[in-house]
Amino acid sequence: MSGRFLVLEGIDGCGKTTQLRHLANWLPRSGLMPEGARLHLTREPGGTALGIALRKLVLHPPGDASPEPLAELLLYAADRAQHVAQLIRPALEQGHWVLSDRFSGSTLAYQGYGRELDLDLIQQLEQIATAGLVPDLTFWLELPVEESLLRRDARSNDRIEAEGVDFLTRVATGFAVLARERSWVPLQADQQVESVSSALESQLKHHFGPLQESMR
Amino acid sequence: MSGRFLVLEGIDGCGKTTQLRHLANWLPRSGLMPEGARLHLTREPGGTALGIALRKLVLHPPGDASPEPLAELLLYAADRAQHVAQLIRPALEQGHWVLSDRFSGSTLAYQGYGRELDLDLIQQLEQIATAGLVPDLTFWLELPVEESLLRRDARSNDRIEAEGVDFLTRVATGFAVLARERSWVPLQADQQVESVSSALESQLKHHFGPLQESMR
Repeated sequence: MSGRFLVLEGIDGCGKTTQLRHLANWLPRSGLMPEGARLHLTREPGGTALGIALRKLVLHPPGDASPEPLAELLLYAADRAQHVAQLIRPALEQGHWVLSDRFSGSTLAYQGYGRELDLDLIQQLEQIATAGLVPDLTFWLELPVEESLLRRDARSNDRIEAEGVDFLTRVATGFAVLARERSWVPLQADQQVESVSSALESQLKHHFGPLQESMR
Repeated sequence: MSGRFLVLEGIDGCGKTTQLRHLANWLPRSGLMPEGARLHLTREPGGTALGIALRKLVLHPPGDASPEPLAELLLYAADRAQHVAQLIRPALEQGHWVLSDRFSGSTLAYQGYGRELDLDLIQQLEQIATAGLVPDLTFWLELPVEESLLRRDARSNDRIEAEGVDFLTRVATGFAVLARERSWVPLQADQQVESVSSALESQLKHHFGPLQESMR
């Protein structure tokens, strides 16, 4: 028996964390998960003990340890390789479900489209780090860049968030391209939290629930 | 004007550190380096501030942060990418010389031959991390495994050094294969320190000194 691997993607402030919390509560009671299956909540970067150390190094590097673009890419790949090998794949093999706040799509969007690093290289590293593991379903929480900027005024910026509007616009475009290329499920994120949650639930029922009587 | 990039490779206890110290003293007074060129001593992993943090993570991981084999490979690649981009390439471009204790050959020997990870994958990551930079000269300090074991009895073991004799034997074989494939300069390391130093000096004069009168 194999579990399900679900991912939430989107720019900062799109509400991934809020929806993750909602699904953490809703999914186990939804009737969609088989008896005995547990739900693992996780994130990238930082889904493992090693990943937490790497996340800290990348987002808040001490002194002159700020990674060069290529080194940063390789650190995200290391975080992902550990995440897949230590947590995601073992959980799926035991029939559990995994819900991750970001996965390899974010590296393509932020480092590829945002920082304009070589997309082929990033995809090559994605293939290496994931060893071919692909999410069963990725939700794209689509938020206009202006709304993202408004929403995070209230937050402390980290290194990546300090890169400005042009950067964020390229990232948003990247997510749009990826969502189309990879058949992610797009969800309008600039609406009431409850409406986004409701849309998520519908999509999950559609993909993993029993077929309607009329469809049989 | 471009500098020179020299590397020392070999199994633990082969005397790299001792010879590095000798060359640090000898090279700048050897007449081989052009006027104004400086000698940068460095090492892998840990040649940069980021690298020091990564070296610590890989060799002495806290709690359950011990990297899976693939993640470890990507961390070494990240260390190398930072090393090349931040230190080695800029130094060479300014005409300086760089002498490194280990480089990508060690990853092939330890992770590839030692841990038996995919050699093609390691070479693919080598190409990515170095962005094609190849040492001008690599010295292989060749030491029998038994001698390596004797020499490090007196030292504290780290995670990699604790892997045992079979592992170390595979690593030593790896170095021998690489030395042949990549035209490294082999040096017998199981002799007096002074003899090894003297052999190193001769090789450096041979490669970078003025041609003999009789050769012109």
